[in-house]
Amino acid sequence: MSSSEAVYLDHAATTPMLPAVLAAMTGQLGRVGNASSLHASGRAARRVAEQSRERLAEALGARPSEVLFTGGGTESDNLAVKGLFWARRDADSRRRRIVVSPAEHHAVLDSVEWLTKHDGADVTWLPVEPTGRVTPEALHAALGSGEDVALVSVMWANNEIGTVSDLAALAEVAHDVGVPLHTDAVQAVGQVPVDFAASGVDALTMTGHKLGGPMGAGVLLLRREAECTPLLHGGGQERDVRSGTLDVAAIVGLQVATTLAVAEREDRAARLAALRDRLVSGVVAQVPDAQLNGPPLDDVVAGGPGRLPGNAHLSFPGAEGDALLMLLDARGVECSTGSACSAGVARPSHVLLATGADPDRARSSLRFSLGHTSTDADVDAVLDVIGPVVERARRAGMGRR
Amino acid sequence: MSSSEAVYLDHAATTPMLPAVLAAMTGQLGRVGNASSLHASGRAARRVAEQSRERLAEALGARPSEVLFTGGGTESDNLAVKGLFWARRDADSRRRRIVVSPAEHHAVLDSVEWLTKHDGADVTWLPVEPTGRVTPEALHAALGSGEDVALVSVMWANNEIGTVSDLAALAEVAHDVGVPLHTDAVQAVGQVPVDFAASGVDALTMTGHKLGGPMGAGVLLLRREAECTPLLHGGGQERDVRSGTLDVAAIVGLQVATTLAVAEREDRAARLAALRDRLVSGVVAQVPDAQLNGPPLDDVVAGGPGRLPGNAHLSFPGAEGDALLMLLDARGVECSTGSACSAGVARPSHVLLATGADPDRARSSLRFSLGHTSTDADVDAVLDVIGPVVERARRAGMGRR
Repeated sequence: MSSSEAVYLDHAATTPMLPAVLAAMTGQLGRVGNASSLHASGRAARRVAEQSRERLAEALGARPSEVLFTGGGTESDNLAVKGLFWARRDADSRRRRIVVSPAEHHAVLDSVEWLTKHDGADVTWLPVEPTGRVTPEALHAALGSGEDVALVSVMWANNEIGTVSDLAALAEVAHDVGVPLHTDAVQAVGQVPVDFAASGVDALTMTGHKLGGPMGAGVLLLRREAECTPLLHGGGQERDVRSGTLDVAAIVGLQVATTLAVAEREDRAARLAALRDRLVSGVVAQVPDAQLNGPPLDDVVAGGPGRLPGNAHLSFPGAEGDALLMLLDARGVECSTGSACSAGVARPSHVLLATGADPDRARSSLRFSLGHTSTDADVDAVLDVIGPVVERARRAGMGRR
Repeated sequence: MSSSEAVYLDHAATTPMLPAVLAAMTGQLGRVGNASSLHASGRAARRVAEQSRERLAEALGARPSEVLFTGGGTESDNLAVKGLFWARRDADSRRRRIVVSPAEHHAVLDSVEWLTKHDGADVTWLPVEPTGRVTPEALHAALGSGEDVALVSVMWANNEIGTVSDLAALAEVAHDVGVPLHTDAVQAVGQVPVDFAASGVDALTMTGHKLGGPMGAGVLLLRREAECTPLLHGGGQERDVRSGTLDVAAIVGLQVATTLAVAEREDRAARLAALRDRLVSGVVAQVPDAQLNGPPLDDVVAGGPGRLPGNAHLSFPGAEGDALLMLLDARGVECSTGSACSAGVARPSHVLLATGADPDRARSSLRFSLGHTSTDADVDAVLDVIGPVVERARRAGMGRR
C-alpha cells in the first residue's frame, strides 16, 4: 500500500511489490550461501540463481546465457551504452559515434554525454516524431554507412509519454550497416509484447521494480555475439561482464515478478487501457483545453499497441506541473510531472521538448501512470478533484507572472 | 540456516541475515514509493532512506552526506578506484599512477588493471609483509613526491588471511603528499573498530551481506572534499556520484545490520576469537605440520586486533585446497579455499603469493571464517573430521603426482 491510503497513480516510477514476489524473496533472504561458493550452501544459491535465469530468459524470448543480472535499470543502461561503446571503439578506433534519441532516459543520455567528454564520443541525435517515436527511416538516414558508429540506443517505450517504438524495424536498419542496437525496455516489459530474439536487438535493459519486483535488481539481456566492456570489474561473475556477488533473493523476486507480469500482460493491458481511456476522457471533459501528449490512445505500431496501456500524460495550459502535482498530492492523489529520476529539478521535460512541444506545454504537464493495483475508484478520485485543482494551479500561475 | 544443517564456516563469503534485518526489510518491501518522487509515498520512502543514512553515518563515524548507497562492495570498489583516478587525472594529467597492494580484492585489482589498459594508468605495487600487512614506511617509499599519484588503495582487513592494517597511519602518509586513500573495509566493519573520520581515509567501501544484511546493498563513504567521477550516470541521486533508484528496503536492511554489528562488535569479537583460537590449536594438534597463514592469532596493530577475530587460514602441505574443501563439504563442513569471488578458478591465491608464500603452500590452503551464528559445536565438527580429511587429501594428491 502507498502511504496513508493515497490513490497511487505513479506506477511508472515504481509499482507495489506483488505478494508472490514478497513471499519468494523472504524465503530466499533466510537462506545463507554465496552463489560463487563451492560448498553445498553455495551450490544451492547458484541453483536458485540459474533457475531464475532460465525462467527469465523464457519469459523474455532470450537464451539463459544472454541474461546478465545487474543492480537495476540505470546500471544496465550505463553498462550497455559505455560497454558497447568501449568495446566497439577499442576494436576499431573510427567507431566513436553514438546514434541516440533525445527522448531517452537520463541513464542513457547522461552516459552518452559523459562519453563525449571523457572518451571522445560523437553524438548524432535522432529526430523524434511529435508522438515521441523514432522511425526506421530516421535511423537509416542518421547511420549513413555506419562505419563510424559505435552503437544505437533507442528506448522500447518512453517512461514519460508512453510512446512505443518498433524495435524490430530499428534493429534491422542498424544491422544492415553492422551496428549494434541497445534498447531501454524498462517500461515495456510486462506492458507490451517483448521478445528479445524476435526483436533482433543486441542489448536490452529491464528492471524489477517497475513490474512488481524489488528495487536494486535489473537485467541486461546481451546477445552472445555482442562484445561489451565491463563497468564493474572483480570476481568475474555474469560472463565476466558484470562482477559482484549475485543478489539471489532479489534475482528470485525479479524473476517471479517478470514471469507473472508477462503471463498476465494481455489481460492487464486491456484492463489498464480501459481505465486510462476513462481517465483521459474524464479529465478532458472537465478541462477542455487539456492536451494529451504522446501518441493517440488507440495508436498502433507494428501490429501492437503504440502507447503504453497505463500511461496518461497531459498538459494543462497555464498551470505549472509541479503545482498540479502538489495540489493533487494534498488531496491524496499521487502522480508525477515526468520521470521520478529528475523530480525536484525545475526544468521542462526533455522528452516533451524532443517531440517539438514548446517549453510552456512541457512545464504544464502531468503523468498519471496506472498499474496492477489500479481500480475504477482511483480514476474516480482523480475526476473528483482535477477540475478545481487545475483552476487553482492556473490562478497561482497567473499570480506569479 | 545453511542447506541441510551444514556446519557453516564461510562467513567471510556471506553470513546469514539477522532476524531484525529480515523484519525491517519485509516491512519496507511492502511499501510503495520511489525516493525521488515528490508525492507523499515518495517522501515517505525518502525519509526512510535518509534516516538510514544518518544511522549508518553515526555507526561508522561519518557525516550523513558522506554516505553514498551503492549496489555492493564490488561497485563501491570500482567507483572509488575508477572515480578517484578519473577525477584526479582529469584535474592534472600527470596524476596517472595508482599505488596499490597486490593483496587487494579482485574488485580493486581488476579495476586497476583495466585502468592501465584503458586509461593509461601506471601501477606501483606496494610490498606486503609476510603477515599480509602494508606498512606506512612502504607506502611512504612508494609515493615519492606524490605529484604523479592519482590514488592509493589498501584494504582495511584482508578477506582471505584476515590481516588488519593501520589505515590511520597509511592515510596520514598519503595526505602528507596530497594523495587520497581508498580502503576496502568490507571485512573490517563490524569485526574491528572502524571510524571513518578518525581514520582520515578519503573513501571507504563496505557491504551489507558480510555482516548480516542483504546482498546487493553497499556503501561508499566518500569524504565531502573528495572529487569522484561517477560510474553510473543518470538521475543524479547520491550527490550526483551514483545514479539509480534508491533500493530503500535493502538500505534499511544494510543499516540495521551495520548498527547491530557495530554495537555488538566487541562482545562478538571476543567470542569469535576464542572459538577461532580453539579451532586453530585443535587443527594443529591433529595435523602438526599445518601452517597458519596471515598474522599471529594474538597480533596487535595500532592498539587493536591485528587479525580478524573470526579468521582461520591454514595451509596443509601436500594436500590440495580444493580437495580439502570438497572432502569437508561431503562431511557437512562448509568453508573456502579463499575468496568466493574467485572460487572455481584453479590458481593459487594471489594474497598468499603476495605475502611471499610459495605456490604449493598457497594451493594447499583453507579458510575457516566464523560469524554470528558460530558455536562450539561448529568447532567440534571440524575437529572431528579434519585429521582423516587431510590424510585422505594428501593420499589423493600423491596419487596424482
